[in-house]
Amino acid sequence: MNVSIIAIGDELLLGQVVDTNSGDIARIISAANWQVRQVTTIHDNAASIRKAVNEALAESEIVITTGGLGPTKDDITKPVLTEIFGGELRQDDSVLENVKKICANRQIELNELTASQAIVPTSCRVIQNTVGTAPIMWFEKDGKVLVAMPGVPFEMNEMMHNAVFPMLLKRFGGGVDIEHRVLLIYKVTESEIAERLARFEEELPPFLHLAYLPMQGYVTLRLDGIHTDSAYLKEVMDAKLKEVEEEFAANVVWNEDRPLAEIALILLRRNGLTLSTAESCSGGNIAHALTLIPNCSDCYLGGSVAYSNKIKINVLGVNPETIECYGAVSLPVAEQMVDGVIRRVTHTECGIATTGIAGPGGATPTKPVGTVCIAIRTPHRTLVDCFHFPGNRARIIERTTNIALIKLIRELRQLEREKRF
Amino acid sequence: MNVSIIAIGDELLLGQVVDTNSGDIARIISAANWQVRQVTTIHDNAASIRKAVNEALAESEIVITTGGLGPTKDDITKPVLTEIFGGELRQDDSVLENVKKICANRQIELNELTASQAIVPTSCRVIQNTVGTAPIMWFEKDGKVLVAMPGVPFEMNEMMHNAVFPMLLKRFGGGVDIEHRVLLIYKVTESEIAERLARFEEELPPFLHLAYLPMQGYVTLRLDGIHTDSAYLKEVMDAKLKEVEEEFAANVVWNEDRPLAEIALILLRRNGLTLSTAESCSGGNIAHALTLIPNCSDCYLGGSVAYSNKIKINVLGVNPETIECYGAVSLPVAEQMVDGVIRRVTHTECGIATTGIAGPGGATPTKPVGTVCIAIRTPHRTLVDCFHFPGNRARIIERTTNIALIKLIRELRQLEREKRF
Repeated sequence: MNVSIIAIGDELLLGQVVDTNSGDIARIISAANWQVRQVTTIHDNAASIRKAVNEALAESEIVITTGGLGPTKDDITKPVLTEIFGGELRQDDSVLENVKKICANRQIELNELTASQAIVPTSCRVIQNTVGTAPIMWFEKDGKVLVAMPGVPFEMNEMMHNAVFPMLLKRFGGGVDIEHRVLLIYKVTESEIAERLARFEEELPPFLHLAYLPMQGYVTLRLDGIHTDSAYLKEVMDAKLKEVEEEFAANVVWNEDRPLAEIALILLRRNGLTLSTAESCSGGNIAHALTLIPNCSDCYLGGSVAYSNKIKINVLGVNPETIECYGAVSLPVAEQMVDGVIRRVTHTECGIATTGIAGPGGATPTKPVGTVCIAIRTPHRTLVDCFHFPGNRARIIERTTNIALIKLIRELRQLEREKRF
Repeated sequence: MNVSIIAIGDELLLGQVVDTNSGDIARIISAANWQVRQVTTIHDNAASIRKAVNEALAESEIVITTGGLGPTKDDITKPVLTEIFGGELRQDDSVLENVKKICANRQIELNELTASQAIVPTSCRVIQNTVGTAPIMWFEKDGKVLVAMPGVPFEMNEMMHNAVFPMLLKRFGGGVDIEHRVLLIYKVTESEIAERLARFEEELPPFLHLAYLPMQGYVTLRLDGIHTDSAYLKEVMDAKLKEVEEEFAANVVWNEDRPLAEIALILLRRNGLTLSTAESCSGGNIAHALTLIPNCSDCYLGGSVAYSNKIKINVLGVNPETIECYGAVSLPVAEQMVDGVIRRVTHTECGIATTGIAGPGGATPTKPVGTVCIAIRTPHRTLVDCFHFPGNRARIIERTTNIALIKLIRELRQLEREKRF
């Protein structure tokens, strides 16, 4: 099944908003064993919408549009869809009821503009938007389906998961099986992985495909397979994945496509451990990554954003003489930070501390921008490491976050293997 | 000048990686007064690349491709570009030298696969990649330019800003002026803004366009203009923006398109104030937003991620009886948190504290998911507020972060107006 996505909105083509919708839809579509053929991002004008929709309908069985449905004047998607699918624009009372309900729930007054959301083409089947005022519109023509979704990401996601996707599954069932396997690998580059897997790739059956996705500090290796025989496909893929796992045994972080923070929390939870953080250069981003994961609070207690030396000294108990002697970005300071957050603040079993120079300022002759010290504490030992990360501020913060979590994950897995818990 | 962007990569169409490159390029292109006509995201296969490139060349003067240039087997962009622009694939010694240098700097061994990056079409002009091994390729044909860029975001950004964009500016100069004006507005919905600006919009000259971008907790209002007379355009736009600012005087957060954290830091800096944070439900995300801004350390000292009650009590000095009596998610606890982080931890003049229920668990009959208490402290007073935010965990965390920063920004501007600093 081929799917085309059309993202509508001037703001996307001005770069003022990053289009996360298309990726979210693509993930759902891939899970259904269908293929996203193309994403087309276009301006909010009739000519662009008309052209993109007609091209997409010619090449795909399913077309999903996002955006261009808001109550404001720059929205002109509905008239174009009426022109393509026929019928006329008319008020739909069930939509008006829904818009009224949404406004009442949010305690906002229903104005004329919002009420105009209820005007929809008579050629579409309306799917009521339970989390916003823009109705979802389902069109059919020559056996093909176009679904017009709102552009606000949470509305799109909510309605895609709970209404549109189940309806698409019901409408178009069956077909081939598409499977994915993932390995997160660190400490080897994309090229080195490719070289070591050159023969493996040559010998891959034609229905399998290996891809490399370089992330900040690690590589996501993805094996994709497509076959009509689902059981056979799974068997071959599991065997192939095992080969790769054996080749990179020393470098594998995890064998699922999950956020690193979630993996760390899984390992902490199954070993009954708690964690806290003391962040200088990563500035709260490790805490943020952990607290994005639901139910993190049973393992992650919190910690300190020790951006200034004053906090390092007063809260974490770092020795001012150590800072004087080695500098704030140093292995002894990282070690005292992780010790301090655990001993003085949180009393957790595990801890992470970071101190580094994220730039653009702050570099010294011996410590260039990108110098980062990370300390990892588990009940059995403390690991401290110094790194030199490339890139700009945001990239150094992201890489510090990822490497700190990877170090903790690797250490917890190592201790599990040694049956130390 | 029309620009088309083609993002190449299976991972984008599987939703495993969000395409940030296209938005980054669009922002740069918009700054040059050129227009991104379309972004097309396609699979890493010859037929898709051939079709997208030919279509883009037919419709735009400038075509920028990203991705499909890595050293691994799934990259087939170069042969297709050779087919379209002529010449043949041959090793370029200057690229090989550059690849060797990059590998040496990163202390990685040069393998055969990485060395193959030096094989480029003879029809292109090579731009050496200073931050990665994939060369940038500049093609010309019938007065049109195609630039093939690597897909790794930091490489693409670095090379776009420092090499490709200046070269494009030199190659295609002049043309019309495109200007943007921005207002960040909160506490009014997109529809309400649209209704109050209906007449204003009707009266806008045809070369101006107003757009609404709903964010988490606020709306970005953008006025776009395009005109051959740059001075006239600027004059009209400034006058029009002033009208909108007057209409929403009570709701304007700022009149530039900057991150909220950066705006807060600007206000703190110009009033000689320092800030710290005590985050429960926002889990470090406010600290992360602040520390993403370069040179934040002169105003932002750090703080506490007080996810557990233990940390609220031990580190911030929140009274256990207050938690017992009102619950951890309550106005008195938020107030004690901001007081504690300033008095006991950081000794800053300003502070932000958050405590709330980000879900999906943790709700009580009186405190549903989305209940968030925020305390803002300035040298003159403490503001505490309770909110009920809609949406899922990530959305509640983002909205908490934005609203906390907006409250601080508004309070600092208010105190500035009252000349209290």
